[in-house]
Amino acid sequence: MKKFTSVQDVPNLPQWLQEAKALKANPFAHKSLGENKVLGLVFFNPSLRTRMSMQRAAYNLGMQVMVLNVGQDSWQLEWEEGTVMNGTAQEHVKEAVPVMAQYCDIIGVRSFPGLKDREADYAEGVLNKFLQHSPVPIISLESATSHPLQGFADLLTIDENKQKAKPRVVLSWAPHPKALPQAVPNAFVEWMRAGEVDLVVTHPEGYELAPQIIGDTPVIYEQERAFEGADFIYAKNWSSYREYGKILSQSPDWTITEAKMALTNGARFMHCLPIRRNVIATDGVVDNSLVIPQAENRLWTAQLVLKKLLEETSSIPWGPPALLL
Amino acid sequence: MKKFTSVQDVPNLPQWLQEAKALKANPFAHKSLGENKVLGLVFFNPSLRTRMSMQRAAYNLGMQVMVLNVGQDSWQLEWEEGTVMNGTAQEHVKEAVPVMAQYCDIIGVRSFPGLKDREADYAEGVLNKFLQHSPVPIISLESATSHPLQGFADLLTIDENKQKAKPRVVLSWAPHPKALPQAVPNAFVEWMRAGEVDLVVTHPEGYELAPQIIGDTPVIYEQERAFEGADFIYAKNWSSYREYGKILSQSPDWTITEAKMALTNGARFMHCLPIRRNVIATDGVVDNSLVIPQAENRLWTAQLVLKKLLEETSSIPWGPPALLL
Amino acid sequence: MKKFTSVQDVPNLPQWLQEAKALKANPFAHKSLGENKVLGLVFFNPSLRTRMSMQRAAYNLGMQVMVLNVGQDSWQLEWEEGTVMNGTAQEHVKEAVPVMAQYCDIIGVRSFPGLKDREADYAEGVLNKFLQHSPVPIISLESATSHPLQGFADLLTIDENKQKAKPRVVLSWAPHPKALPQAVPNAFVEWMRAGEVDLVVTHPEGYELAPQIIGDTPVIYEQERAFEGADFIYAKNWSSYREYGKILSQSPDWTITEAKMALTNGARFMHCLPIRRNVIATDGVVDNSLVIPQAENRLWTAQLVLKKLLEETSSIPWGPPALLL
Repeated sequence: MKKFTSVQDVPNLPQWLQEAKALKANPFAHKSLGENKVLGLVFFNPSLRTRMSMQRAAYNLGMQVMVLNVGQDSWQLEWEEGTVMNGTAQEHVKEAVPVMAQYCDIIGVRSFPGLKDREADYAEGVLNKFLQHSPVPIISLESATSHPLQGFADLLTIDENKQKAKPRVVLSWAPHPKALPQAVPNAFVEWMRAGEVDLVVTHPEGYELAPQIIGDTPVIYEQERAFEGADFIYAKNWSSYREYGKILSQSPDWTITEAKMALTNGARFMHCLPIRRNVIATDGVVDNSLVIPQAENRLWTAQLVLKKLLEETSSIPWGPPALLL
Repeated sequence: MKKFTSVQDVPNLPQWLQEAKALKANPFAHKSLGENKVLGLVFFNPSLRTRMSMQRAAYNLGMQVMVLNVGQDSWQLEWEEGTVMNGTAQEHVKEAVPVMAQYCDIIGVRSFPGLKDREADYAEGVLNKFLQHSPVPIISLESATSHPLQGFADLLTIDENKQKAKPRVVLSWAPHPKALPQAVPNAFVEWMRAGEVDLVVTHPEGYELAPQIIGDTPVIYEQERAFEGADFIYAKNWSSYREYGKILSQSPDWTITEAKMALTNGARFMHCLPIRRNVIATDGVVDNSLVIPQAENRLWTAQLVLKKLLEETSSIPWGPPALLL
Repeated sequence: MKKFTSVQDVPNLPQWLQEAKALKANPFAHKSLGENKVLGLVFFNPSLRTRMSMQRAAYNLGMQVMVLNVGQDSWQLEWEEGTVMNGTAQEHVKEAVPVMAQYCDIIGVRSFPGLKDREADYAEGVLNKFLQHSPVPIISLESATSHPLQGFADLLTIDENKQKAKPRVVLSWAPHPKALPQAVPNAFVEWMRAGEVDLVVTHPEGYELAPQIIGDTPVIYEQERAFEGADFIYAKNWSSYREYGKILSQSPDWTITEAKMALTNGARFMHCLPIRRNVIATDGVVDNSLVIPQAENRLWTAQLVLKKLLEETSSIPWGPPALLL
């Protein structure tokens, strides 16, 4: 494994879930693995959970960490080929990424979509440029169209809390005042489909996820009907894929309430955070939810991803042979 | 001890002063104490001394550190209960704090007052929300109304430099172009009253500190008379508590000058820094002062606070028993 | 050696080049040297390579690092003597630097020129204030008029890639949309003159570098003639020293092209990065250049500078004798 940008980078998902639990039980067991290794975290957008959970995960493995806030600490980047760079961008990604890769053993990168041009966002330009130009492993810290670290933590949380072998999991759209990316629902659908769950998606018409993501997953347009028999309710807002980046509804009819939770099979509520209380879900729903342990699992899954990348790559090119793993 | 937000969190102040001196003499003696431990520093406001002294203190104890600049690196926070979060705040403190606490063993937080609403500021909303929602120890890195790490360093500096058992210490208001919090003078009064000093406060009328802080401490409105017999002059500006947050005077008559210092008992000049030269005090006064060793003591007192918290708490909930202190 | 601000701080340049290569071959051989030591990096301006290479270098030596972005994380600084500080500056460098020096064993500082007042920029006010007020070693991370860490990495890169004992090296001005400092070309000329190369400089009239820098280095105003017989082409834009800070030309005639490179003795192209592609040099020139290994050498030269400072100074004043090197 040379990268972590999707569930497809995981060779054996059930085994990874077991190994994440083992790390959680014994966080410092692999502290020598990261010795002399440095994780670089490159943020084009803000972050709390991802920033802190990745740092902690690296420290638990004995790594050091460098954080770079692009455009704030550093230079503006150019992404296009062949540009005459006489505008605001000061450095081309073709230099910035190989240079950073010489100072880091693993690089994580976060870059949100513009939500203006669907084709451009789904081409994953930033992430792919990092993959293309980096000789060291790349971790997606949330890209334009996916958030695999979140999807992995979500699946671990469901695995830990399920009461039956194949629980019924409902992904429900919920209202929000701003146009949000599809990255989290996309990742959630991908990871649930790869895991052992019975997935249903519910949202207002017009909010259909990309066909290559949703596949044959059942979609139910009546939220309350979708909730029947659910073991987990996973709420998330996203903007429209069809009318790309648009807000088609802000209806509070889709807010997750205690009354709606009562329609389920005693389902546990989940959300990736940050959550807008009394907009996405009522206080009562959030207060009795899995959101805090779900966020804790961001740490253990991040730590496993780092561990796998440290184990399976000789990483930094200049490391002398004796020091390579 | 599960927190450090006030002098009242210190069970035995004379002993703590001795232990801080011992750390200063032997900074790396407890380096294994912080192994596998991470300090999170959350800044809602800028910082130089606090930021760097806390980091250094953590490193001296073998800890790792994560710094989060809220609103810059991360999301805007909501503080009120029951709000419908459809405005600018993206995450509620009820999620943000427990989540951060899962990634950190100790959390430090800095948040300045708004200086508009006295009742709100003195209710210490931000700090108390952190205390309420964090399972791990909280350190105040300066709150709306107090700065205990500064008060502790001030007391240590006086203890190290005093020529008599109970020195006369004068806290003097001094002019400043901006409205400043009362956090530093409040902390100074609290720590001096808990220590072995003879404290006097001097300021123009209208600048009386909160009654619950000042207690029975003598207040003298004539600055020069207050300076007579002083062993230490501690200067600081603050805005009015009575006419809350107002600047009632910018008179250079209150600037600390060499002529005024000559009225004292050879007093040493102190200030918490940053200091505006030739506004708070003249160059000659600052150049012959304790401000630099006083700032150094920010490190040793911070290190002792971290050491105490590491020793007395099992901290991170997920740590396996064998690794807990 | 108590500082690193110029090639003149290097007592034996050929030996330093050899030691840098030894570090590159064995990066972690001196990891105990930085134990209990902390590097402070103070940025008044953005940085990618310097920020990350210095951090990595410190980690390779076992040091910890604190980064401070002045004016963003911290307070505005005052630089002048005797000022009445009632404006925007909140802290004088006379306090800020000695205070930081109490928390750090070595301090690096980056501060760009204003490009308005030549005398002020060439007086190196910021760097000199740090040198004047710091008891711990200062490293220039690029000052108003020089960038010695870049010059050192450039010389190492030439030393590693040269095909003859004394290669012909051409520093060529190239166009750019903004007015840039002379720091990099100044440093390049200084380090080349101290090394074993045959240096030529080419630029449009009006772009002459400071006489105290250029000395007797040959200047050729026709770029193509200067390229004849060159073994290395080092491109860089700078604003005018004579008409200080002005852009006198943005002519694409000075862009480095493959046709111009064909006039050389098979020269390798170099640039300090960030480089504006198709403005400074064409894609074809940059794609077949030394810019990436040149940036890698920023790490090894930085690490050697840190190693030398750690070896030759007892650094932090409060360290107990047994812990000093």
